[in-house]
Amino acid sequence: MNKFSATYTDLYQISMAQVYFKKGQKDHQAIFDYYFRKLPYRGGYAIFAGLEDLLEEISKLSFNETDLEFLRKQGFEDDFLEYLKDFKFHGNINSVQEGDFVFPTRPILQVEGNLIEAQLVETILLNLLNFQTLIATKASRIRYVAGESTLLDFGLRRAQATGGFYASRAAVVGGFDGTSNVLAGKKFDIPVSGTMAHSFVQSYDEELEAFRDFAEGRPNACVLLVDTYNTLKSGLPNAIKVAKEMEKRGQRLLAIRLDSGDLSYFARESRKLLDEAGLDYVKIAASNQLDEHIIKSLKEQQAPIDIFGVGTNLVTGDPEGALDGVYKLSSSNGKPRIKISESIVKITLPHKKQVFRIKDENGMCVGADAIGLHSEESIPEMIHPFEPYKSMRLDSFQQEPLLKTVMENGVMQIEKRSLKEIAEYSISRLAELPKEYKRFNNPHIYKVGISEKLRDEREKLITASKNKLK
Amino acid sequence: MNKFSATYTDLYQISMAQVYFKKGQKDHQAIFDYYFRKLPYRGGYAIFAGLEDLLEEISKLSFNETDLEFLRKQGFEDDFLEYLKDFKFHGNINSVQEGDFVFPTRPILQVEGNLIEAQLVETILLNLLNFQTLIATKASRIRYVAGESTLLDFGLRRAQATGGFYASRAAVVGGFDGTSNVLAGKKFDIPVSGTMAHSFVQSYDEELEAFRDFAEGRPNACVLLVDTYNTLKSGLPNAIKVAKEMEKRGQRLLAIRLDSGDLSYFARESRKLLDEAGLDYVKIAASNQLDEHIIKSLKEQQAPIDIFGVGTNLVTGDPEGALDGVYKLSSSNGKPRIKISESIVKITLPHKKQVFRIKDENGMCVGADAIGLHSEESIPEMIHPFEPYKSMRLDSFQQEPLLKTVMENGVMQIEKRSLKEIAEYSISRLAELPKEYKRFNNPHIYKVGISEKLRDEREKLITASKNKLK
Repeated sequence: MNKFSATYTDLYQISMAQVYFKKGQKDHQAIFDYYFRKLPYRGGYAIFAGLEDLLEEISKLSFNETDLEFLRKQGFEDDFLEYLKDFKFHGNINSVQEGDFVFPTRPILQVEGNLIEAQLVETILLNLLNFQTLIATKASRIRYVAGESTLLDFGLRRAQATGGFYASRAAVVGGFDGTSNVLAGKKFDIPVSGTMAHSFVQSYDEELEAFRDFAEGRPNACVLLVDTYNTLKSGLPNAIKVAKEMEKRGQRLLAIRLDSGDLSYFARESRKLLDEAGLDYVKIAASNQLDEHIIKSLKEQQAPIDIFGVGTNLVTGDPEGALDGVYKLSSSNGKPRIKISESIVKITLPHKKQVFRIKDENGMCVGADAIGLHSEESIPEMIHPFEPYKSMRLDSFQQEPLLKTVMENGVMQIEKRSLKEIAEYSISRLAELPKEYKRFNNPHIYKVGISEKLRDEREKLITASKNKLK
Repeated sequence: MNKFSATYTDLYQISMAQVYFKKGQKDHQAIFDYYFRKLPYRGGYAIFAGLEDLLEEISKLSFNETDLEFLRKQGFEDDFLEYLKDFKFHGNINSVQEGDFVFPTRPILQVEGNLIEAQLVETILLNLLNFQTLIATKASRIRYVAGESTLLDFGLRRAQATGGFYASRAAVVGGFDGTSNVLAGKKFDIPVSGTMAHSFVQSYDEELEAFRDFAEGRPNACVLLVDTYNTLKSGLPNAIKVAKEMEKRGQRLLAIRLDSGDLSYFARESRKLLDEAGLDYVKIAASNQLDEHIIKSLKEQQAPIDIFGVGTNLVTGDPEGALDGVYKLSSSNGKPRIKISESIVKITLPHKKQVFRIKDENGMCVGADAIGLHSEESIPEMIHPFEPYKSMRLDSFQQEPLLKTVMENGVMQIEKRSLKEIAEYSISRLAELPKEYKRFNNPHIYKVGISEKLRDEREKLITASKNKLK
């Protein structure tokens, strides 16, 4: 799963590549922007994730013999297939750092390369970035309400097939502590956790016997699931008995787990029983269709839950199916390019660009990212991209350029960071974002604007395009 | 991507396995049922998909050296790891055939094996079956409204990372004709299709020049995207010009593609212009956030669209994030097992079971599947599983047993079918399902019942469990 064939793409990318190849444009240089149009979850920000996976995959992208054979059968021509045989991505990529918060409209990542290579990476780029950004954003929202509680990803069984592998990774970027997904834990160095299933308890005649065996068979990571028969009458008393037996062996029961019923009520009653038995160190874990809203409610009720296991709603990004990220041409063969639409929000921004984050003297975000031409070193005033009479002076603020070189001539230019480092970076960035952008209900709208120069360039191209149609 | 490590699982499966191993239960035989509780999309049926992938993966499931090393670091013990080193699934699987329609509550697939092997396949089983069944069901709904039109999967860029690979496969099971996903096309032998992107047109100074080059560079599969600048004033006239030039070379333009605006209006106007130019053979393809509801509306408006490209909503199964399929123990160590719950719909069905599809003398479904004990050869009367006073006489009907042996002692017992054969089987089965179960609004509810014997067995276990808690 760690090496994609270059056929992990839409057929039309290869069709267009053949045309560029045969029509003498294979060395034309192009610039594409990656951005999205709408924040997921009606939230105030998104967390950018998937970059390091993407760079790794792009730097290894190639067609093997069986790929070429398959393409030959699809009618691709020999000289072009010969070219693909040696294909390697040699372009440059400028990007926001993984873990940073991002907003609609503004470029998050820019690919520069010849038309063929820039086009051939489109699908895998969208596939990996759209999904991980969606899940990291979901995870960040869950982290926001969970405070210091431990958050575990339990979603693999309901994940969209192998997508679960990347969901576990993105969850950590967004603030999760661990996963039940062993393979993801191994590949991405994520702490793995797990408890027991109802089937384990059911496979015994007596719950107590099941708990006792589990404690003996897995003493260093023992979490007992207490709701198979009756949480307070059977599960808790049996768990307490086993915890006391463990104490005699110098071991400690890690936690009990609740997976049904009113989690707030059962957590409170369980805490009471555990504390009365002198087991205040035994933690309470809860699961069962959790999401940020249920966890928020449990927190508001001060339910004494230490560990939340989140499954389906985390790894599928529910209720959003996908992030609507797109990859649009902004320059080719030395000319700025634009995509015209009747709807102004769908008109693309031409030229190679830079994005600046606007901050006050304390390094706190003032709630604005400004998009300029790449040649601009700072932006004195930004204009709303779709409402030309809205503007904001920026010259009294600090301006941090966000797009940095992460790949040059096909070679990664950033140190590979551990997932933990990426997650910590994300936390440090989010600390610069005022909390009114983080709330769930009607979050404050972070402003994205364009420079006057970029606006003028866009105007020029729109006018030229309209004149042509007259 | 075609070989999973056995670590593609939740950690607790391995934790439980260690306990079974150390506590002398590793050879206890168990039976688990796979089923789901709720039909997705408020629809009338679901299409079962993913079986062949699952059987293939299960028959190859193993732990390699690095897996064992990772597990050692998680505190698993040496004797158990030694056992895992030689782990292979040697159990039996009984299942509904892939492509058949299925309903909540009734077992779709049954795993028989020792406790360890039956537990270790749970996560991959749920992961592959839940997702493919969700997507095949979505695809089947889209096929239902699309009639004879060509349906293409364009979703890879918005798929949940590598889940897109399996989405493309499941889409074909549910009735799609092809995919843009080259890798899935190659691996699963699905016809691959594609057109061109807006970026291709934008990379040229003139749209006409772009179309001309594309027609020359990819003459045998030429579809022109006509909405980059202005569909009717620019795209269509240029496409017609190029189609005429192709005719002179003895070639044919395959189709034009619409990707924005009112698809019904633009399809009708485009058809008119194409026909007036003598290009009645040029097809019209449409895309842009399509789903079954939009296609249904386009069909009702008689929009002359021949090919629908469906993306995000197909491959993510939107608005459902996941199918809620579960895997529950029904027997172990020779005893029937049950999971108790306050809510009767969550109480599991004990024992090894068979499911019968009830049909009339013409082989048409009468709208009932009956679950009995495996020893029952037919079921005279079925009872509602949760409402004991609802019942239905079945003795005058034909009863088709649905669970068949598909794996024995770890060896696949079914001939591998092509995806096309599975899709055809699905169509033939759906032909036996009356259309009131297929409509979108308040579809007729297909009945699922249990035999008297199974009900009595369940009662007995519920009573025994309650008595224990007294």
